[in-house]
Amino acid sequence: MTSDDAFADTGLLSPVRAGTAVEEATGDAAYVRALLDAEVALVRAQALLGHAPDGAAEAVASAAAGTARFGARSLALRARSGGNPVIPLVADLTAAVAEETPEAAAHVHRGATSQDILDTATMLVASEALGLILADLHRIATALGRTAAEHRDTPMAGRTLTQHAVPTTFGLKAAGWRSLVLDAADRLTAVRSTLPVQLGGAAGTLAAFTAFGHSGKPAGDADVRPGAPATGDAAQDSGVRLVEAYAAATGLAAPVLPWHSLRTPVADLGGALAFTSGALGKLAADVLLLSRTEIGELSESGGGASSAMPHKTNPARAVLVAAAARQVPALAGILYGSLAAEDERPPGAWHAEWQPLREALRTVGGAADASAALAEGLCVHPRRMRENLDLTGGLIVSERLVTALSELIGRAGARTAVTAAAGRAVRDGTELHAALRQDPEVADVMSEERLRALTDPAGYPGSAGVLVDRALHRPDTRTEADTP
Amino acid sequence: MTSDDAFADTGLLSPVRAGTAVEEATGDAAYVRALLDAEVALVRAQALLGHAPDGAAEAVASAAAGTARFGARSLALRARSGGNPVIPLVADLTAAVAEETPEAAAHVHRGATSQDILDTATMLVASEALGLILADLHRIATALGRTAAEHRDTPMAGRTLTQHAVPTTFGLKAAGWRSLVLDAADRLTAVRSTLPVQLGGAAGTLAAFTAFGHSGKPAGDADVRPGAPATGDAAQDSGVRLVEAYAAATGLAAPVLPWHSLRTPVADLGGALAFTSGALGKLAADVLLLSRTEIGELSESGGGASSAMPHKTNPARAVLVAAAARQVPALAGILYGSLAAEDERPPGAWHAEWQPLREALRTVGGAADASAALAEGLCVHPRRMRENLDLTGGLIVSERLVTALSELIGRAGARTAVTAAAGRAVRDGTELHAALRQDPEVADVMSEERLRALTDPAGYPGSAGVLVDRALHRPDTRTEADTP
Amino acid sequence: MTSDDAFADTGLLSPVRAGTAVEEATGDAAYVRALLDAEVALVRAQALLGHAPDGAAEAVASAAAGTARFGARSLALRARSGGNPVIPLVADLTAAVAEETPEAAAHVHRGATSQDILDTATMLVASEALGLILADLHRIATALGRTAAEHRDTPMAGRTLTQHAVPTTFGLKAAGWRSLVLDAADRLTAVRSTLPVQLGGAAGTLAAFTAFGHSGKPAGDADVRPGAPATGDAAQDSGVRLVEAYAAATGLAAPVLPWHSLRTPVADLGGALAFTSGALGKLAADVLLLSRTEIGELSESGGGASSAMPHKTNPARAVLVAAAARQVPALAGILYGSLAAEDERPPGAWHAEWQPLREALRTVGGAADASAALAEGLCVHPRRMRENLDLTGGLIVSERLVTALSELIGRAGARTAVTAAAGRAVRDGTELHAALRQDPEVADVMSEERLRALTDPAGYPGSAGVLVDRALHRPDTRTEADTP
Amino acid sequence: MTSDDAFADTGLLSPVRAGTAVEEATGDAAYVRALLDAEVALVRAQALLGHAPDGAAEAVASAAAGTARFGARSLALRARSGGNPVIPLVADLTAAVAEETPEAAAHVHRGATSQDILDTATMLVASEALGLILADLHRIATALGRTAAEHRDTPMAGRTLTQHAVPTTFGLKAAGWRSLVLDAADRLTAVRSTLPVQLGGAAGTLAAFTAFGHSGKPAGDADVRPGAPATGDAAQDSGVRLVEAYAAATGLAAPVLPWHSLRTPVADLGGALAFTSGALGKLAADVLLLSRTEIGELSESGGGASSAMPHKTNPARAVLVAAAARQVPALAGILYGSLAAEDERPPGAWHAEWQPLREALRTVGGAADASAALAEGLCVHPRRMRENLDLTGGLIVSERLVTALSELIGRAGARTAVTAAAGRAVRDGTELHAALRQDPEVADVMSEERLRALTDPAGYPGSAGVLVDRALHRPDTRTEADTP
Repeated sequence: MTSDDAFADTGLLSPVRAGTAVEEATGDAAYVRALLDAEVALVRAQALLGHAPDGAAEAVASAAAGTARFGARSLALRARSGGNPVIPLVADLTAAVAEETPEAAAHVHRGATSQDILDTATMLVASEALGLILADLHRIATALGRTAAEHRDTPMAGRTLTQHAVPTTFGLKAAGWRSLVLDAADRLTAVRSTLPVQLGGAAGTLAAFTAFGHSGKPAGDADVRPGAPATGDAAQDSGVRLVEAYAAATGLAAPVLPWHSLRTPVADLGGALAFTSGALGKLAADVLLLSRTEIGELSESGGGASSAMPHKTNPARAVLVAAAARQVPALAGILYGSLAAEDERPPGAWHAEWQPLREALRTVGGAADASAALAEGLCVHPRRMRENLDLTGGLIVSERLVTALSELIGRAGARTAVTAAAGRAVRDGTELHAALRQDPEVADVMSEERLRALTDPAGYPGSAGVLVDRALHRPDTRTEADTP
Repeated sequence: MTSDDAFADTGLLSPVRAGTAVEEATGDAAYVRALLDAEVALVRAQALLGHAPDGAAEAVASAAAGTARFGARSLALRARSGGNPVIPLVADLTAAVAEETPEAAAHVHRGATSQDILDTATMLVASEALGLILADLHRIATALGRTAAEHRDTPMAGRTLTQHAVPTTFGLKAAGWRSLVLDAADRLTAVRSTLPVQLGGAAGTLAAFTAFGHSGKPAGDADVRPGAPATGDAAQDSGVRLVEAYAAATGLAAPVLPWHSLRTPVADLGGALAFTSGALGKLAADVLLLSRTEIGELSESGGGASSAMPHKTNPARAVLVAAAARQVPALAGILYGSLAAEDERPPGAWHAEWQPLREALRTVGGAADASAALAEGLCVHPRRMRENLDLTGGLIVSERLVTALSELIGRAGARTAVTAAAGRAVRDGTELHAALRQDPEVADVMSEERLRALTDPAGYPGSAGVLVDRALHRPDTRTEADTP
Repeated sequence: MTSDDAFADTGLLSPVRAGTAVEEATGDAAYVRALLDAEVALVRAQALLGHAPDGAAEAVASAAAGTARFGARSLALRARSGGNPVIPLVADLTAAVAEETPEAAAHVHRGATSQDILDTATMLVASEALGLILADLHRIATALGRTAAEHRDTPMAGRTLTQHAVPTTFGLKAAGWRSLVLDAADRLTAVRSTLPVQLGGAAGTLAAFTAFGHSGKPAGDADVRPGAPATGDAAQDSGVRLVEAYAAATGLAAPVLPWHSLRTPVADLGGALAFTSGALGKLAADVLLLSRTEIGELSESGGGASSAMPHKTNPARAVLVAAAARQVPALAGILYGSLAAEDERPPGAWHAEWQPLREALRTVGGAADASAALAEGLCVHPRRMRENLDLTGGLIVSERLVTALSELIGRAGARTAVTAAAGRAVRDGTELHAALRQDPEVADVMSEERLRALTDPAGYPGSAGVLVDRALHRPDTRTEADTP
Repeated sequence: MTSDDAFADTGLLSPVRAGTAVEEATGDAAYVRALLDAEVALVRAQALLGHAPDGAAEAVASAAAGTARFGARSLALRARSGGNPVIPLVADLTAAVAEETPEAAAHVHRGATSQDILDTATMLVASEALGLILADLHRIATALGRTAAEHRDTPMAGRTLTQHAVPTTFGLKAAGWRSLVLDAADRLTAVRSTLPVQLGGAAGTLAAFTAFGHSGKPAGDADVRPGAPATGDAAQDSGVRLVEAYAAATGLAAPVLPWHSLRTPVADLGGALAFTSGALGKLAADVLLLSRTEIGELSESGGGASSAMPHKTNPARAVLVAAAARQVPALAGILYGSLAAEDERPPGAWHAEWQPLREALRTVGGAADASAALAEGLCVHPRRMRENLDLTGGLIVSERLVTALSELIGRAGARTAVTAAAGRAVRDGTELHAALRQDPEVADVMSEERLRALTDPAGYPGSAGVLVDRALHRPDTRTEADTP
């Protein structure tokens, strides 16, 4: 780090994403690269339709490849006066083209507005980042699927409102985590498949593009009379065809309309990313609780070391994932708020999207990466699960007892008997089945063996096993198309 | 309003939804009704599978129909000690059943946990509310589609970053609004079609349900031995079958897993509602700007009267819709945050969903209702559009001039000539074409007639017409299934 | 509940505030009352300055006292067309005055704009609600102060990143909770003491008020010539004096400027309420964790009953307080967002404040009420604290051991020895001091008695006692002025 | 920019802060410097109290001065495993000290926990950043004060709910902006003056610090017996004295309690920053509206150039400030949410603060810088203000007419006459006074001259002038202490 970039954010305050692939895919350099790719794709599309000479496209591509020229920091500094970084980028790119191929310079950014390029670049970056995130979600789902299958019948305490409720299995918990991760993957995949190119020109009418015919010359001169009908449909169609060619050149989808102030793609990204951070946050929240010193049912492999306490290993990955889940919903809220964008291109709502979207991408990306390591290395301690299950001396299955006794002595009587016995068990430190045997009405109708069996926490899994099977039957629908 | 309900929120501070159908569909009374419906559906499903006598189901249904008994306020007050309103509701319902059919009382809420009922009721309410909202979105899309077609070629100023940029058409703007509204409808429809019933029992294992065989008697006694294998798959399957029967009885979807702490449906609702509020907020933001005294291109029919100024009519509906768009993203953020819900049932994350989700539903519902009236009654003033378009004396088509002149005198020369002429035009108050004629280099290459034509703002719509056609070609995919 | 108010929110989904004093103080009826109080105070202030006859003030006050007339629901329904509820209220109030004292009707709302009345009423409601909340914070601080003093030296495990770190005391924890609650009280008190009356007229210039001289007749006719100088300073001063009289009549502060679009009071309320919800949320978060079945160091007196499990008592109050803490920051975000309010009175930003502010007030009010019951009834279990402290067999004081051993065998050696012994202790299930005695280097320099003493978790409280004393020395600065 | 830091955020997507002093003061390098300052201050404070040799403090300070060693990126990458960047920083610093002064190495970070250092560093960074922001707010207040004084009596249309309401003055608008900016400065100053140092050790008990007596040797050995009373108050006091010495060494305040999980300072920062972004956002919102092509009452000096339209100058600074105001409330919401932090140090709530607080600081810092340039260079166009004021042909003073006519023909009659005349005026394109003269009832009681005078928009400023004077009388309370 040199003194020149003292202002930079290099991840010091976001360890969750420091060093991850998504961080690099969403860095300023990646955005600059995507901006250049968007400019090159535009002139290539124009050349394809005959609106620009092929040589111009090659000249722009060649100049854009000289990355040394396009420093993110310089663009950032010069972005301030015009409000966005595309204006200085176009100046730099035009100068670079002009040096080598002066006659091609006029074809740089021709007909486009800054937002065409920045939105397209943002979609390219988002597509790349989502690909990486989806790959990590796949790793997580695979690991959790394995864990759920392995622990399909491992009993543990089901906990509700912080208290032991009835038994469950660790398999069911892990299958639930996986299910939520797959839900997140579905949402990201759906959004990713529709990320559109942006092209509309100054006010979204494609006007500066429709001015050109196939000859590369301005079209429609015949129509240019005061009061003449609007540009003919043939010329208008050429604008739409350019959008399609541009989409093809970038690999993004072709939108029906320019979306300068119709921000569906960005809002959808925000929602899907908030969902993903929350899905991973559920995993982290459970790991944090089950790793507590008093509970000890799970631990992270290679948990973080403490600077002050040599004996202590922290659930460091879960901590970072939990921290991510606290941040992304607010960022998504900014993006949803930007839907209410006025005019053909809005004064502020658009600009407010850039940094929150990038932060959301890289925070979720970091959380996915950390969660993958967490899921793959999770240490499960079934003995501690069993010990905790026994902590309440059978009280955890009082529901079951009430049900069984109800058949014999009525529901009210059953409830009274179990509640009283539970009180005695807690007071005397005895097991619940023993306390129940002290109740003559119960002893009359139920054998000690039956009481022991009914109070065995491991014997009351409900449909947990079948639910795990059902949940694991859901395929991880990751396809080739998701691959980054 | 009596003194007894002085505490109530009856819409005084939310005029956007006061008196709308969605408000009623999301009031406390609707929730109480849905809670009762959920209880009735549960015992009906149990009866269907032979876990409860048919008579019990009828007895519960009959008691639940006596709504006088189940006052929302009483439930609210008694909800506090246990943390949710289902506990007192079950007490009331059980008492009501016991009065008429004592033997059926034990079948009320049997095996269920509060969250099973409250989540199911919430989905029922959400489904109803979304149906109403979708109907309003349909009205809006229809009205905007008509407006867009009618004004397909009505020229107006395209505005970017608050300034006139290049011309556009009002048709394109209206088609864009419609497009965003259809995006919202798509998202709401997708969420609505998957809203699931909730059923899991105390910790989501369906344990208290699997204890019952088809005889209505507890099943699996044979297995109840210490150390015996877990409940057999047959009994486990009966839990899953109950979920399916319960779904059928309510009309909701059957989930793969209980989702007590896997909050996909609620997060999805939050996202889709935030999207919808933003989509309508875009419409409102534009209407507010275009209604300004100085712009005057649009007005609301029957705009709101001012208390202080008799002459003034406010764009009151747009104001309320804009206010809604400022609120819902934050509410959605709370819901996304609740994804990170710990344990089998979470201590707080779940409880934090109830009111924000309801507020989101009714705020969006109100906004949709107000937007429908707004869209259907929107007054368009093409003359003012044209007057504003002419405000800059042709400067609004400087882009076009630069393009056309570039072919003749090079891009740099064209840009210089237009910028200089624009300056003269502003300074001298002349038209741009006249100012350009003063430039000998321009006068040399372009006739006055050509200059006049090129500076006519109405003659530069780009692809606006074709884009409108494309956008209107998108069907409003509302189906019977959406009908409330 | 009658069918007429099926739409109402009576607290069913917000048990945290159902039945609390703050709920009633923030209900629609309280707002209607405050709106009427604001109208009455205005005409009273005008009468005081001679701008209205005394009889008019009394007539308005008398009509306003007839509450039967002013139903919140009717106002809500009629609010929709004009966008706010003051317009129909003024109509009703004027009609009521006209019935009894026709000549006074013209003095209703004279010169005011809707926002003058609604903002003033909101400040009146907020002041009342904050008074109630502050009273509850006082109860909480008192209870926690007592608890902290009582448990000044009760040792317990200090937990960081979910793991036992070093010992602390329960007194220090309780003193910390109290400290945060007092911080919240300070912020609410500061905001409450500055809540201002609103008065500006249509665009905040007080123009319609300055038109009246002391005679009750329009003033300044002499100036009313085209091109004449602006209204004289004497008339202008009378506007300012009216603001002061109005403030005096309501008990609120007199603002320097009308604040129709300078929203300091509302933003400050949002911040202070979010702070308070978070401060109480910290208390709740700790109670929830320390109440967990495995930890058991705290329990709520009279915890909530579960609908499914007779043995289980939930920390129901803490759950509701935790849920409140998840909601209010988002509501405050809406209010901060409304600072960016355009024009003299904004189209939407203002309207977006009403419901979120009310929800924030009553959610925080409910949380304060529930926290007071929680703090006053908190059951502390020092024996469980001690048992948990011993769980790690002395590892919790490894920091202390490293420090002590460092003096004798160097820091690196000490760290190595303690880490190795900790590993042995965990593996063999022995106490840490025994494991350390097995290390010859340690045994050489430290006696068994010294090792036992150094590994006693209760003997390492640091400055906890002194910190508790310091914290409790901070007075609860609640004054008479805070009293509701 | 080299390929090594492709991941970095150098401001490309946040032009509002690119190149500003606050950006540099909040960069990773500034945080690293602050972390080192915190470590040095700690050992200096320990040396001062005799807990460490003076030489150790100098050795640590000397090693910390060698910044080349402490690269933010390296720390970021190594932060991931332990969850925070202090752990690797301590390792690097210890190694650097050990190279030169081996015996001092043990004194690096002695007794501290990572959070002590990171929180202290964050407060140092925040204090510096707030100083810079306050300096910019001072510039803004000064410029706006000048503008308000200059335009004290410049009439313009008062606009409410987007419509002309009654006249106001530009002086009053500017005075309002200034008032809000001063409110922001007051809030930032209050928070800045209380930013505390953090010191508590592993669990906030100062235990590892109280183990040392004035000799630099561990103290209290006499007490180290099983069951012995807790550390004596003398030793405990030494912990508290160290906190005070540490505070003095850093220039920050000394807290009553360690605040590892009592997050008042961070929440207060969040609130004050959200307030400031909103206050500047109000200025920006008005500038954006008044700069619109159709309104043209204000323009930014040197507005941003458009990439597509040579003639267009955008209000680029206002756009960036408006975008900032959309982001910071959400970031503050994250910080308020982190108040509910469990345990002695929380697993996630703390980590979630770092990046949002930094983003809030630098986004507000950028907005303050941009607003200062905006306020100082704002171009005011009184002629356009007057032209717009006349747009409604006198309707803007209909309020005044109703008031004046009410005295003569009753309020109802006045209202009817004015409304009817307004309708005629709009329909016929005449002036309001002429339309009124056509009403015989009006013509009877009011001369044409009087009607002309009453319909002159410039003659109805209300108390605007006096209000401006009052507002400007409020001093800008910036003191030396605020100076960065």
